Amino acid sequence: MNEAALLATRHGAEAVSGGDFAEAIERMIAGLEKKNRVLNEQERRVVAHHELGHALVAMALPGTDPVQKISIIPRGVAALGYTLQRPTEDRFVMTREELENKMAVLLGGRAAEEVMFDHLSTGAANDLAKVTEIARSMVMRYAMVKSLGHVAYEEERPPFLGGPLPSGHREYSEATAREIDVAVRQIIDGTYEKAVAILRRERALLEQWALKLLDRETLVERDLEELRRAVARDAPQPA
Amino acid sequence: MNEAALLATRHGAEAVSGGDFAEAIERMIAGLEKKNRVLNEQERRVVAHHELGHALVAMALPGTDPVQKISIIPRGVAALGYTLQRPTEDRFVMTREELENKMAVLLGGRAAEEVMFDHLSTGAANDLAKVTEIARSMVMRYAMVKSLGHVAYEEERPPFLGGPLPSGHREYSEATAREIDVAVRQIIDGTYEKAVAILRRERALLEQWALKLLDRETLVERDLEELRRAVARDAPQPA
Amino acid sequence: MNEAALLATRHGAEAVSGGDFAEAIERMIAGLEKKNRVLNEQERRVVAHHELGHALVAMALPGTDPVQKISIIPRGVAALGYTLQRPTEDRFVMTREELENKMAVLLGGRAAEEVMFDHLSTGAANDLAKVTEIARSMVMRYAMVKSLGHVAYEEERPPFLGGPLPSGHREYSEATAREIDVAVRQIIDGTYEKAVAILRRERALLEQWALKLLDRETLVERDLEELRRAVARDAPQPA
Amino acid sequence: MNEAALLATRHGAEAVSGGDFAEAIERMIAGLEKKNRVLNEQERRVVAHHELGHALVAMALPGTDPVQKISIIPRGVAALGYTLQRPTEDRFVMTREELENKMAVLLGGRAAEEVMFDHLSTGAANDLAKVTEIARSMVMRYAMVKSLGHVAYEEERPPFLGGPLPSGHREYSEATAREIDVAVRQIIDGTYEKAVAILRRERALLEQWALKLLDRETLVERDLEELRRAVARDAPQPA
Amino acid sequence: MNEAALLATRHGAEAVSGGDFAEAIERMIAGLEKKNRVLNEQERRVVAHHELGHALVAMALPGTDPVQKISIIPRGVAALGYTLQRPTEDRFVMTREELENKMAVLLGGRAAEEVMFDHLSTGAANDLAKVTEIARSMVMRYAMVKSLGHVAYEEERPPFLGGPLPSGHREYSEATAREIDVAVRQIIDGTYEKAVAILRRERALLEQWALKLLDRETLVERDLEELRRAVARDAPQPA
Amino acid sequence: MNEAALLATRHGAEAVSGGDFAEAIERMIAGLEKKNRVLNEQERRVVAHHELGHALVAMALPGTDPVQKISIIPRGVAALGYTLQRPTEDRFVMTREELENKMAVLLGGRAAEEVMFDHLSTGAANDLAKVTEIARSMVMRYAMVKSLGHVAYEEERPPFLGGPLPSGHREYSEATAREIDVAVRQIIDGTYEKAVAILRRERALLEQWALKLLDRETLVERDLEELRRAVARDAPQPA
Repeated sequence: MNEAALLATRHGAEAVSGGDFAEAIERMIAGLEKKNRVLNEQERRVVAHHELGHALVAMALPGTDPVQKISIIPRGVAALGYTLQRPTEDRFVMTREELENKMAVLLGGRAAEEVMFDHLSTGAANDLAKVTEIARSMVMRYAMVKSLGHVAYEEERPPFLGGPLPSGHREYSEATAREIDVAVRQIIDGTYEKAVAILRRERALLEQWALKLLDRETLVERDLEELRRAVARDAPQPA
Repeated sequence: MNEAALLATRHGAEAVSGGDFAEAIERMIAGLEKKNRVLNEQERRVVAHHELGHALVAMALPGTDPVQKISIIPRGVAALGYTLQRPTEDRFVMTREELENKMAVLLGGRAAEEVMFDHLSTGAANDLAKVTEIARSMVMRYAMVKSLGHVAYEEERPPFLGGPLPSGHREYSEATAREIDVAVRQIIDGTYEKAVAILRRERALLEQWALKLLDRETLVERDLEELRRAVARDAPQPA
Repeated sequence: MNEAALLATRHGAEAVSGGDFAEAIERMIAGLEKKNRVLNEQERRVVAHHELGHALVAMALPGTDPVQKISIIPRGVAALGYTLQRPTEDRFVMTREELENKMAVLLGGRAAEEVMFDHLSTGAANDLAKVTEIARSMVMRYAMVKSLGHVAYEEERPPFLGGPLPSGHREYSEATAREIDVAVRQIIDGTYEKAVAILRRERALLEQWALKLLDRETLVERDLEELRRAVARDAPQPA
Repeated sequence: MNEAALLATRHGAEAVSGGDFAEAIERMIAGLEKKNRVLNEQERRVVAHHELGHALVAMALPGTDPVQKISIIPRGVAALGYTLQRPTEDRFVMTREELENKMAVLLGGRAAEEVMFDHLSTGAANDLAKVTEIARSMVMRYAMVKSLGHVAYEEERPPFLGGPLPSGHREYSEATAREIDVAVRQIIDGTYEKAVAILRRERALLEQWALKLLDRETLVERDLEELRRAVARDAPQPA
Repeated sequence: MNEAALLATRHGAEAVSGGDFAEAIERMIAGLEKKNRVLNEQERRVVAHHELGHALVAMALPGTDPVQKISIIPRGVAALGYTLQRPTEDRFVMTREELENKMAVLLGGRAAEEVMFDHLSTGAANDLAKVTEIARSMVMRYAMVKSLGHVAYEEERPPFLGGPLPSGHREYSEATAREIDVAVRQIIDGTYEKAVAILRRERALLEQWALKLLDRETLVERDLEELRRAVARDAPQPA
Repeated sequence: MNEAALLATRHGAEAVSGGDFAEAIERMIAGLEKKNRVLNEQERRVVAHHELGHALVAMALPGTDPVQKISIIPRGVAALGYTLQRPTEDRFVMTREELENKMAVLLGGRAAEEVMFDHLSTGAANDLAKVTEIARSMVMRYAMVKSLGHVAYEEERPPFLGGPLPSGHREYSEATAREIDVAVRQIIDGTYEKAVAILRRERALLEQWALKLLDRETLVERDLEELRRAVARDAPQPA
């Protein structure tokens, strides 16, 4: 709201418009629009395919939030492009499958880079950090990996049934830490494979729409609706 | 009392009534009643079965506190539903078996989700944290696992027979930490299996009463007495 | 106030009475004799056998302090019963055997529970902490385990022959930490077996005197003298 | 003052002169051109080949920043010589291959010392620190090593999907730390071999131009353009 | 000096006498003389043999400081008896052999208890701490164990050849920590065996003079000279 | 300078002379001259051979700083004797071979003790600390051990290519820490063997000049020039 009011003030409006809100929300997600950050041509191509990778995986997987906007106009310090998903609803309970789909969307950017350019780049750093955080929570807080038992491995726990928690060291053993690492790696690599498989299937759409994105710099809802229908036609079974 | 007084004031009462107290106590356990938190239909179904899972396991196991109320009206920040157990008495000495039954009740929610939906969700995070804390206390404070000896593995101990305890590191070795991890996992998984077995046996009641709970949102003592009798009939031997 | 509200709720009252308040205040006072702490019947039986376990092991082992009083009237926050041993003299030098006998007395409570009820309970937590502390001192400060050498493994040592001790980490290696853990476990389990053996031999006295203790709540010196003589008759060789 | 006294002592003076003071003050000033730092002849030869090593590797690898200036006039506290690369553009997305080329340039100095003198010296300390930092980022932040999965192993992560990160210990296990070490070592040694191979191929240029650099002390753009063309002629395939 | 002055004041003297000095020095070594600490008969016997153990080992080993006084009158908080050795000179360089002899004297107390009573007691705690400290210094600071190399394993080192030392963790590896533990244990157990061997040889003197010490409570220089001559006669080769 | 001014003041001079400076510099290196510290005869012999050990190894190895003065008059708190080396020039780049020669000089003291007395003493503690610091820098900062790769293992590194370094734990793994330990030990023991070999070869000079040093207490440049020539004659090939 503050952000929207500020924007309204800045362009001299009397009231905060719906456009101000939309812009404020986008700003919060991807940072300040910076037209002056100049990527080279190859970087622009990488970013365009990266962002379309997020979008295509989201469109191919059931239960993920719909894609609202894709842009390759750099914003803020870190974001070189962004894909905006509109949450259809607040979610309070999520299953392992739903979390894995969310992760696959996050890994879709890197997967698109691999499918198109066969490289690994620095562009996925933020996505990797988020994906790792989700995977560690799945393993350690939500006990979603059977081999580790229905055990919570988190440090911070409500004081329950007795004294304060000892601090300064890990509660669980090295061998268990290794089991956690292996489980995290398996979950992430599994979802990455899912993203890669989707993008290999949708490679034609990926290439064709990357060209559109490079040309227009931003794809809005109408474009994306068209893309979504194309993806739906490719899907083995409608979701 | 503060809470009760506040409630009384809020609805304009001159004095604090028993109902205010009951409400205040419930609030302390499950947080503020928030009718405005909107779960989607599938989430409500998950929550309803989760809460009934707690209740049915409690009813099937001897020596657990009787279930007083079940509700799927979300309360507070974390609780999406709650199952209120009234302690029949303060307990001062508990056996391993009694603690395992308590754990089985806590795991009943997740077990019901597995039995009904065959999924693992984020809904059990608090239950898992509590169950892990109990299991670690059983292993480390109460030395209830024979293979680890009648040894206390807790950090905080009354200074006894000499100087201050060294701090900043774990007193016991890595190999022992691993033994503790394995013991904790075995205890928890054993009690989880117990909960699942009960709910597979009571699956009909679980489905039938979940529908009631979804319809009425809250089950009170009279309803629960009926459910308890139904569970008692199913029990292999009356407890 | 919380406590009073809870008590009122527990006996089904509509409002909090003066008696509830008085009770709540008493509950908060620690260290005094609290008849109002109500153990259930089974808990009282467990506590009675637990305390007699301490006493009978003390009476059966040479060189331990004589038992002066046994009571199952709860005291303070933690103690549900207590066995008072009068030190016959201050001791300045103790041998490994004497320390093990002291430990056997401490483990006598849990051993009695196992002999009588075949369970492991939370009632022995304090005893286990003390026993572990003694065993760790035997291993680490007094170097009483030959395989670990005549080496002190304690952190805190008088600065001697040079600079300050490095801090923040354990001086000895993981493999040595494991040797210490194993030695501690062996000492404790050995003394526990000693306590169990004594109580199996004295099971008749244990059962008979537990009934007396449940009836009178407190056993004083005259009673205990009688019990001591009975134990002495059973002993394979007079101590 | 200490510095001045030391200088006086070194040239055998009876007292500290004004010149000694001036010199001492200059020595303390960092970042400025310091002709008074006197390297011995062998050190000058080592530095000259070291700097040319950076330059030749940069010229031989595609996509690295062009070399603008090389100097063996010592600057500042740490730099005994320097090779200035002019970034052609800001880079926002870099691939593993591009980062490895950057590392090869950094290791070019040490590689030149090995090729020419068959020794390992202290002169590469800063290069090694930078190279290690890049390699660790490739492994831990950018997940560019397939065997470690698409997992972020960094400590500092945006708080996401839940509570604060536990601190004071490493999040991942010892076995994973070892995998990271091995991966870092492989990446660095691979790029080092690449630098050595280039310099063995360009050994004639290295020797010939080191003589020029020792003679002129600084090589500027015109010289470097000539060198670049020479390197280009040697390259197996024009990049 | 303060201590001596205080003593002089306390018994009303005008000046500090030589006796006050002697007493002050003894007090610093063994703490305040406390005639009121009452050991039982067996404890007195243990202490007497323990102190004679120190003295006899010192007398049997070349290069150790001569024994000046032995007493079983308890002093201070910790000392139940004491053996006073007068350093013949300040030592600045000590060899491994000399340090081992010093350790053998410290372990002579415990060795005497084993030879006479075949027990391990708490009485040697201070001796063990000192012996361990010496052995760790031999291994870690003085590099006196060939298999560990001429390497210093201490944390605190003069900042040399570069930046500050990293803190908060051990510089060396776990495997090296274990090597250190094993080396420490071997040195200590070797010197302990030396002490035991001496005391088995001198068992007759040990028993005979323990009786004298129990009778007189304190042995002074004249007595000790007689004992020393007796030990010298037993020695396989005069030292 | 302060020190020199103080010395001048102390002997009543009007100005600070070169001699005052020389003395001040020596004081900084070896501490305050303390004629009152009395070593026993054997200790003096050990110190004399120890210091000559440093000097002889320095004279036998090419590229080490020339020995300016040797003294066995104790200085300061720690130094029992000292060997002063005058740096011929400031060095900015050092090779592994040069650092190893520097280490061999430092270990020459202990090596002389072993060659002459076949003992290990406490006298080498400072030398060992310095040698270990150099060896660790060779392994960890300068990556001079091929098997560990061209990797920097130091904690403190210039912040490069991203966020702050995590603290409180070691960056590298246990297995790598062990590799570092083994490499350090090998480097040190190799240089120690070099020092021992030199001193065995020069044993006659060592014995002969130790007598001179014991007699005169200090050897100055003229004496040392004579010794240097004698060493040069023994050298297999002139350096």
